[in-house]
Amino acid sequence: MSSDLNSHVIRDLVIANRILAREGVIDDFGHVSVRNPANPNRYFIARSRSPEIVSADDIVEFTLEGEPVQAENRRLYIERALHGAIYMARPDVNSVVHHHARSILPFTITELPLKPVFHMAAVIGAEVPKWDSQDEFGDTNMLIDDLPKGHSVARALGDGSTVVLRGHGAVCVAPGLAAACFLSVYMMENARVLLETLPHGNPVYLTSGEVEQTAKLLLSDVPMNRAWDYYKARAGFPGI
Amino acid sequence: MSSDLNSHVIRDLVIANRILAREGVIDDFGHVSVRNPANPNRYFIARSRSPEIVSADDIVEFTLEGEPVQAENRRLYIERALHGAIYMARPDVNSVVHHHARSILPFTITELPLKPVFHMAAVIGAEVPKWDSQDEFGDTNMLIDDLPKGHSVARALGDGSTVVLRGHGAVCVAPGLAAACFLSVYMMENARVLLETLPHGNPVYLTSGEVEQTAKLLLSDVPMNRAWDYYKARAGFPGI
Amino acid sequence: MSSDLNSHVIRDLVIANRILAREGVIDDFGHVSVRNPANPNRYFIARSRSPEIVSADDIVEFTLEGEPVQAENRRLYIERALHGAIYMARPDVNSVVHHHARSILPFTITELPLKPVFHMAAVIGAEVPKWDSQDEFGDTNMLIDDLPKGHSVARALGDGSTVVLRGHGAVCVAPGLAAACFLSVYMMENARVLLETLPHGNPVYLTSGEVEQTAKLLLSDVPMNRAWDYYKARAGFPGI
Amino acid sequence: MSSDLNSHVIRDLVIANRILAREGVIDDFGHVSVRNPANPNRYFIARSRSPEIVSADDIVEFTLEGEPVQAENRRLYIERALHGAIYMARPDVNSVVHHHARSILPFTITELPLKPVFHMAAVIGAEVPKWDSQDEFGDTNMLIDDLPKGHSVARALGDGSTVVLRGHGAVCVAPGLAAACFLSVYMMENARVLLETLPHGNPVYLTSGEVEQTAKLLLSDVPMNRAWDYYKARAGFPGI
Repeated sequence: MSSDLNSHVIRDLVIANRILAREGVIDDFGHVSVRNPANPNRYFIARSRSPEIVSADDIVEFTLEGEPVQAENRRLYIERALHGAIYMARPDVNSVVHHHARSILPFTITELPLKPVFHMAAVIGAEVPKWDSQDEFGDTNMLIDDLPKGHSVARALGDGSTVVLRGHGAVCVAPGLAAACFLSVYMMENARVLLETLPHGNPVYLTSGEVEQTAKLLLSDVPMNRAWDYYKARAGFPGI
Repeated sequence: MSSDLNSHVIRDLVIANRILAREGVIDDFGHVSVRNPANPNRYFIARSRSPEIVSADDIVEFTLEGEPVQAENRRLYIERALHGAIYMARPDVNSVVHHHARSILPFTITELPLKPVFHMAAVIGAEVPKWDSQDEFGDTNMLIDDLPKGHSVARALGDGSTVVLRGHGAVCVAPGLAAACFLSVYMMENARVLLETLPHGNPVYLTSGEVEQTAKLLLSDVPMNRAWDYYKARAGFPGI
Repeated sequence: MSSDLNSHVIRDLVIANRILAREGVIDDFGHVSVRNPANPNRYFIARSRSPEIVSADDIVEFTLEGEPVQAENRRLYIERALHGAIYMARPDVNSVVHHHARSILPFTITELPLKPVFHMAAVIGAEVPKWDSQDEFGDTNMLIDDLPKGHSVARALGDGSTVVLRGHGAVCVAPGLAAACFLSVYMMENARVLLETLPHGNPVYLTSGEVEQTAKLLLSDVPMNRAWDYYKARAGFPGI
Repeated sequence: MSSDLNSHVIRDLVIANRILAREGVIDDFGHVSVRNPANPNRYFIARSRSPEIVSADDIVEFTLEGEPVQAENRRLYIERALHGAIYMARPDVNSVVHHHARSILPFTITELPLKPVFHMAAVIGAEVPKWDSQDEFGDTNMLIDDLPKGHSVARALGDGSTVVLRGHGAVCVAPGLAAACFLSVYMMENARVLLETLPHGNPVYLTSGEVEQTAKLLLSDVPMNRAWDYYKARAGFPGI
């Protein structure tokens, strides 16, 4: 892998970190990773650091088992098993976001279904599956801090693009960083709209045909570029 | 048409783009157009680009059928049929805004009526009509991506100033850019107030007499200039 | 009246305009006035201009009947009758704020009582009276655009510090600008807390004894200076 | 105590003031203190000043009884008895925050239990105790303005980390400033999530085992440093 490709990927990962902070998806905790395009058995993610202040120097390369490729003595994210386990299970996935966006939390601690009610959210899939650490692991520190928990979440994710974790947050996966940010933002927005709608009656959800057609269109070139340019400008990278 | 007039119109359209972003009406998706004052069969709108980052260079002139007047190889908004169809149907309309302001979405996916409850919102009309892509088109990608859908929305709009689209967003039309921004902002604000009121009982809506008298006053010179000056200053155009 | 006093009063009025914008009490519409300390039959208020962009040059002196003291050909607030009528009725009042803070609107269009539920809001009084333009004036343009309507609102205000207007907004009055800003902010905040509490059960309101003791303390020197310094710094006047 | 240690502690206290303002925990009223690490019978807190604008010059050292250690003629916080009484009762506590974060207020004026529903909030304890000034003191000005009220709140706090005050706000205590800020932020966030969840059904709260394990982990070195670095950068102290 050339260092040019490396620096390009790392730059985009830094931008994605800043975007997820700027758009209110991630605050002090949560993270985003990208698979190494030159070696599918490696991925990049920041050392333990809030996305809003991540720089290129903070990016570390890991094996899918969660070991740093080069010796590293800085603090590392405790939950990186989540990323590795998903990259193992899903060759089509090249970026993983883990966040605690507040609007999705009510759906993780009630029976409320999390389904798209407006077109931009079609990308989250017809219905978001739910994962509860109690089911397999009982009382824990709530973190996905080892591979068995990572594999368990990956199974709940299945072949979809999103999964929520009880009393914790969400995971969004996509073929690339731009789509992963897009998914994360609109998952959060859709949840917010649902919370504001439900007190007033049952909403009309998108039909499965609408979800499929709209998601396909939104993840295509024109919309994805528009969103990425917008996110980058707002996150402080207008000319890149 | 003189290039002076052109540059004046384009400047105001850029400002309107920035205003709608600054006031939280439009995020990455959504758009605003203005009819060419020198040729009612043409309108201006940005190329595919989020309003927050639109500049004069991004503005493109279109026929009402949606063809760029000059050869154009940049990406274009997929939903420009919405603008053209409304300019065809409504000679009194010189500006069209299409947005996904979150607060109006609950009204598009439930039976809740969207009517003005405070004076500033009288401009949206006595009750906002609702359009559902399913009625004529069945499962789609949810976008107004061709003239038949544009004409259908224009029919739902009728001779009013606003219409909402199920699971999608809203359209606001006005005699000019300032009024179109004003309408969009107060439609969003009125929806927010309604959502916060409805859990506590039935609100007193404005009477039809109040709607008529208040809308007439608000769209007059003094209030419209005050709002436009305010919006411009906040969007970064204080001296214009 | 010396021009020094004049310039001091006008400076504080400009600051109050900026504070009310910065704290989210007033957006494009709404206004704040101050009685001329050298002549109780005069008051100062901006020409028709949104508070966020008001400067010293925008301040105009008016008689209580609403006539500019010096010839003025700029646009003027349509609702200045509200200010004059209150200064006539209430010699103890030296500042009037009229705003459309969103959180108070639900209380103007339902039966919900607006009463303080947390200590900082004791300053709004034990219960905010409600005024409806329909009662005396039937269908109108909803504005307080003449003295009869101004007098009617002043009667509803009585000897209190706040009144709300159906489908419109609120009026807050105080012995000075700092207290008028403070009242406006905490009226808005208390309404927001109430809206968030009511779906979960009946709140415990402050007792009348608590309202009285707490309001007296908050309007005293120490808290009022702390709030004014804070507001000024946030509004861009840190050193004044 | 060396002046170096003093200046280090004061610097961190200034930063904590700015953090609590930046994160929306404290507005014009509320305060944060830190125990003097060189003398457990002393604590530092600002003179009467809003945290957003506190500087090192504003910090004053007090005895636990609330007397300034050095002669002081600036205005002082009326509620400092709250801080002193807690430092007397709790040798393990080195930092106290008192705030009026809006989202916790509904829990102080209803029967709603305030318990953690997401992992980050495990630090507030299994259930937040409630204190009502009426119980021992009847009608008051609602402030904790003398030691008897301070001792009463300290008793309600017990050996926990948080307590809420009816119609007033909350108190958060911790072994240090970073943890006190962290607790305050996540108490506010958890309350917000609860308010948004409760209209939709009974939430699943964290189990007591989860609260214990998760709180222990979050208050450990890695997460606490990540949060503090994040808060500092956002509050304008990126390099410290």
